[in-house]
Amino acid sequence: MKCRVCRAPAVVDVRRHNAGFCRDHFVRHCEEQVRRAVHDHHMFGPGDRVLVAVSGGKDSLALWDLLLGLGHHAEGLYLGLGIGGYSDESYGHAAAFARRRDATLHTVDLAADHGYTIPGAAAATRRSPCGACGLSKRHLFNSYALDHGFDVVATGHNLDDEAAVLLGNVLRWEEGYLGRQHPVLPASPGFVKKVKPLYRLGEREMAAYCVLQGIDYQVEECPMAAGNRHLGYKELLNDLELRSPGSKAAFLFGFVERAHARFAEDAAGQRDNLGTCRECGAPTPGEVCAFCRLRERARIAG
Amino acid sequence: MKCRVCRAPAVVDVRRHNAGFCRDHFVRHCEEQVRRAVHDHHMFGPGDRVLVAVSGGKDSLALWDLLLGLGHHAEGLYLGLGIGGYSDESYGHAAAFARRRDATLHTVDLAADHGYTIPGAAAATRRSPCGACGLSKRHLFNSYALDHGFDVVATGHNLDDEAAVLLGNVLRWEEGYLGRQHPVLPASPGFVKKVKPLYRLGEREMAAYCVLQGIDYQVEECPMAAGNRHLGYKELLNDLELRSPGSKAAFLFGFVERAHARFAEDAAGQRDNLGTCRECGAPTPGEVCAFCRLRERARIAG
Repeated sequence: MKCRVCRAPAVVDVRRHNAGFCRDHFVRHCEEQVRRAVHDHHMFGPGDRVLVAVSGGKDSLALWDLLLGLGHHAEGLYLGLGIGGYSDESYGHAAAFARRRDATLHTVDLAADHGYTIPGAAAATRRSPCGACGLSKRHLFNSYALDHGFDVVATGHNLDDEAAVLLGNVLRWEEGYLGRQHPVLPASPGFVKKVKPLYRLGEREMAAYCVLQGIDYQVEECPMAAGNRHLGYKELLNDLELRSPGSKAAFLFGFVERAHARFAEDAAGQRDNLGTCRECGAPTPGEVCAFCRLRERARIAG
Repeated sequence: MKCRVCRAPAVVDVRRHNAGFCRDHFVRHCEEQVRRAVHDHHMFGPGDRVLVAVSGGKDSLALWDLLLGLGHHAEGLYLGLGIGGYSDESYGHAAAFARRRDATLHTVDLAADHGYTIPGAAAATRRSPCGACGLSKRHLFNSYALDHGFDVVATGHNLDDEAAVLLGNVLRWEEGYLGRQHPVLPASPGFVKKVKPLYRLGEREMAAYCVLQGIDYQVEECPMAAGNRHLGYKELLNDLELRSPGSKAAFLFGFVERAHARFAEDAAGQRDNLGTCRECGAPTPGEVCAFCRLRERARIAG
């Protein structure tokens, strides 16, 4: 297979585009997809301060690298989840990348700064660790960005992630989640703007990008996520993609283009009717926000 | 396992309800689901003349049987598709059922009445036989009902069928199809009302119903449908249902209850902008309707 652009030998093939790329043109392809996502959805401009949610995995490091390469002001925030050696190793990859690119990496550590860990929170609440983790991330990336004057939080959700989340939301017709599932979630009182510049690029492309750019990343899946429903949806979509390349992109992009707006009004209405958490000041439908309640229970148990 | 109602030994289990049933209470369960579908969606009343689209398979014969059992005026229409021995055998089951229940079975034969067959049409158009078959059925059931004074056409689409079609429509976000996918499609100029009274009952339930009621039916899948995309979606949903019983029903019912209306307006608009086929008078966006064009091409080739 040859590079679609220069006819040199291809090192990566992207089946849904029915195209191969040499190293340089593959990197350009990734840049182009990110540029297009950022442009089409008005994610941010040259003057904006972008906070990248950095896990140390392929997606967040590729995202950070791509944004820096495109000339954006992008700083990273690593959240220490307290998942033993997995977290230590993940942090090592994030810190090494920041040093190499001379970029700023901020850190928040759940144990040191908030008195709990994800495994502890999961045990205390008897709920899935992924639920506690997602809640902690959403809250802390948001509050860090607001407190430190960032214009937008960028996360490394790729095409595969977003398609799997969409499938889960569609299978249960979760109206509220469908209304909030979009490459851009605009700012609203108490919420910083959130964007997903990798939504046009697949998991395999992000792994190839890191390998070709010499970025070391955490290769392992999180040990606490094994067997969760999200991974089941990914498998299911992978089966479909094998039979019919391009299915995942058609599913996700079709939703963004033709269906999301039909659900968005409900979601916007939900955000308008929020009060303020009496512990931390975050928007919440109750008296104390879900993050503060989680932290309280996890601290007591721990 | 015992019958949920009378504690006698169960002969059928319905996993998504986490329930077993004895013979009599399983039949009542099926009747109840049909009664509920008919009632909730105002499908038809006691005075209405219902035309059942009868293929000779389990779903259409179970539907016909259930409607007769519930006291509805239900006549059958069998469409001869010309798929060799498969069609002959299917017709045999439909005719035997009609004789046994002393019910009226009408027939339309594609070859005798319209000069083509499904295999012939597929070859002539070089398109999937399922496409030609669906188009022929939609057109002919509709025109037969209009010409013979029926109030409504009832088809045997079950929960598994509808969920698989929905998955296909959602994976490509086919807005028009999503707007028309509902247990009831109301009448509009040139279109008879169409209903799917079995949408709350699964494939396995319909097979069990026929076995328990002693209804012989065409057990084979249509030989022309093997490997089509619809069957792939069914497999995919079956995998999901195995992991998480009730998924299929949650997917389909959730759509009907919470999402369909968001797509329905587009579909209604499309129906309002139709002209009249110059060959047959059916509603069409062009000069000649898709059915007449198919028939013409298939006749010439045949």
